[in-house]
Amino acid sequence: MTNNLPKKPKTKKLVYLDHAATTYVSQEVEKATKPFITKIFGNPSSLYELGRIANGELNDCRRKVAEILHALPDNIIFTGGGSESDNLAIFGVCRKIGKGHIIATRIEHHAVLYPCQQLEKEGFTVTYLEPDSQGFISPKKVLAAIKPDTILISIMYANNEIGTVEPIADIGREILKYRKANNPSAGSGQVQYPIFHTDACQAGGVLELDVEKLHVDLMTLNGSKIYGPKGVGLLYKRRGVNIQPLIFGGGQEMNLRSGTENLAGIVGFTKALEIAQENRHEENMRLVDLRNYFFDQIQKNIKNIRLNGPQLHSDKNQSYTGQAGSEVLNRLPNNLNITFIDVEGEAMLLYLDAYGICCSTGSACTSMSLEPSHVLTALGLPYEYAHGSLRFTLGYCNTKQDIDYVMRYLPAIVEKLREMSPVQMGKVQHAKYKK
Amino acid sequence: MTNNLPKKPKTKKLVYLDHAATTYVSQEVEKATKPFITKIFGNPSSLYELGRIANGELNDCRRKVAEILHALPDNIIFTGGGSESDNLAIFGVCRKIGKGHIIATRIEHHAVLYPCQQLEKEGFTVTYLEPDSQGFISPKKVLAAIKPDTILISIMYANNEIGTVEPIADIGREILKYRKANNPSAGSGQVQYPIFHTDACQAGGVLELDVEKLHVDLMTLNGSKIYGPKGVGLLYKRRGVNIQPLIFGGGQEMNLRSGTENLAGIVGFTKALEIAQENRHEENMRLVDLRNYFFDQIQKNIKNIRLNGPQLHSDKNQSYTGQAGSEVLNRLPNNLNITFIDVEGEAMLLYLDAYGICCSTGSACTSMSLEPSHVLTALGLPYEYAHGSLRFTLGYCNTKQDIDYVMRYLPAIVEKLREMSPVQMGKVQHAKYKK
Repeated sequence: MTNNLPKKPKTKKLVYLDHAATTYVSQEVEKATKPFITKIFGNPSSLYELGRIANGELNDCRRKVAEILHALPDNIIFTGGGSESDNLAIFGVCRKIGKGHIIATRIEHHAVLYPCQQLEKEGFTVTYLEPDSQGFISPKKVLAAIKPDTILISIMYANNEIGTVEPIADIGREILKYRKANNPSAGSGQVQYPIFHTDACQAGGVLELDVEKLHVDLMTLNGSKIYGPKGVGLLYKRRGVNIQPLIFGGGQEMNLRSGTENLAGIVGFTKALEIAQENRHEENMRLVDLRNYFFDQIQKNIKNIRLNGPQLHSDKNQSYTGQAGSEVLNRLPNNLNITFIDVEGEAMLLYLDAYGICCSTGSACTSMSLEPSHVLTALGLPYEYAHGSLRFTLGYCNTKQDIDYVMRYLPAIVEKLREMSPVQMGKVQHAKYKK
Repeated sequence: MTNNLPKKPKTKKLVYLDHAATTYVSQEVEKATKPFITKIFGNPSSLYELGRIANGELNDCRRKVAEILHALPDNIIFTGGGSESDNLAIFGVCRKIGKGHIIATRIEHHAVLYPCQQLEKEGFTVTYLEPDSQGFISPKKVLAAIKPDTILISIMYANNEIGTVEPIADIGREILKYRKANNPSAGSGQVQYPIFHTDACQAGGVLELDVEKLHVDLMTLNGSKIYGPKGVGLLYKRRGVNIQPLIFGGGQEMNLRSGTENLAGIVGFTKALEIAQENRHEENMRLVDLRNYFFDQIQKNIKNIRLNGPQLHSDKNQSYTGQAGSEVLNRLPNNLNITFIDVEGEAMLLYLDAYGICCSTGSACTSMSLEPSHVLTALGLPYEYAHGSLRFTLGYCNTKQDIDYVMRYLPAIVEKLREMSPVQMGKVQHAKYKK
């Protein structure tokens, strides 16, 4: 397979550049969860000391997470993951009311899109907003889509494929204004429709999570993208927002998510969120530098490429100030999504894998399917461009050496695949790229 | 609090007798999960080697569990726990069809009862079968409740409070006969209504799980009661049974349960199920002996008690033969549920806790509520009897010494509480127990 390509290194190397798909569990997180696996294993609903200790720890986690989100502890519903939280938010709001209009975007994760499609079957109507060519959704576009029966607006905080950071705070402010103007008699603290949900699964380790600054009513977060355990997430729910549970039973999580609490998972998730939020400014700046270096190297060494998603600013201060409250981050600092024209993304992925380099085409969740990314096609990219794209997402473990390692192989792989491409060989006409 | 009561031992002791609430994670299970937390952390949907290894392990788990259940690997849907699996089974079947009649029992776990109640709000009808005085549901009673529009029958395998083992195989056989008689034109392999689901959360470590012998179409199992991790479970689904997902998204688990797979949890759950099923005959006999010894000691030392649930057979061979295929286990071997007449269950629980003894009143899931157990009241026990009951559920770690330790304190605690009881003090008339 690597004929005509640089030789593999003698010792096997792993360069993991797919942190948006999932992350390993960090040592600190693993250490934090350990006591709750074999020792403090009581059911938090049990009345004896072992249960009370477990319950105390559960409440501590709820309080710690609430502090990070500037929320109240009973606003935090721990769940079995990000997809469950998204489903709980969307089905929860809509099935509680029974009918109405929903606004989402074309570039949401499938854990938002498919519940919306299911609700269409149940009689709800949905408007799917088109992003601009870089994936942005403007507050104006959101406002224009609101109808008198709009009950829910769900817009992701940061896109998992192209890294676009949506102006959630601005959108939230506009929705709040709309609500105030249209419900003048509502008492303070009473949430009115439309309710605003954001899927923040890609933002947990990187962006501001203050729900007051963001003006969100519901927010989904999970553990498996921030060096926490898999199988655990949360839904933030503002007081006054009424939702129907997805899972009924023992009444755990304020009666909104039944099932024996996965305390070890919750402790690990909480720890991971604390660490990520504490380190994010410093780490974001490091990742912006590293990502921009990576892109520079690609630009210098490979022709006919296209950056998908928001532009990268060469001036770090322009793309990221590092100041809480004045962040101008418009693209996830670790995300690079590139189309290599005339090359198949999956072929590149497999060649890179032979050198121990992990990256993805589209999102991991749908990589088993042959459909092109719904996100890239929503940007207006033709089918063929979407098929030739790779997503690299950097993380804690990555260094400049990793990028240099990738650059030893990537240009040669692209060149080899272009030589084999039917377009380059004149078998297919270039016109098809223009549709 | 322990005034007039035996002194506490100098070194703090923990006697955990609440294994039906939850179990610790066994060392073998913890060891098995470890590599999947920090090393083999890839997303099973990713195409590179790290993802393929994760996916291979996921498939191995599916195959191993399928073997235990005598099922096909693609019959196994891994979920976030027992409550989720119960909800997936019940909402899954019913919402797929949209209307119809459901049969359940009064003594189901709330993860079955509350979804049924929710479906009543959505227009479905439900018959809740009354058990006999020991908690048994006869196949005849089930058959008699079937209506032409019955789409789902959900009957638990073993009750979590009183340990009653329902005759699932007999009920399943009768449902199968009914289906054959009423759908003569159905092709082979085609499942007809009513579909049969069993909640086997309390049975996973103890009972026969062969879905062919049990004639079930859906079966719920979980990890947290069998020395596996919390936050993971499964739903067995016979081929041909159509269900609607509870969680939509990336399409994991044969498109029936979306969300990044919690591989460490799944590996741990699989290991726990393997160990439990391998050891169950031997361990069941040990637990029957230990439980019966415990009950003998209570009978000898404490007056005015009542055993709730099925009778205990003093002859071990009568209550448990230990032979696969000829099991006559009619009560979970580790379960003891006793009413101490004229005593408050919660007071006993807290006194016992002071000596490091963990047990429960009712199920852990609802122990935060003051309502008497819905299971005990369904047996016909008056409110006061239900309030004076304790559930002891033994496990791997328990020995005869543990029982002897409990018996050093339990009689004195009961005596002390009876002295303080308003009934004993003549303040309340005994007549109230006769209603």
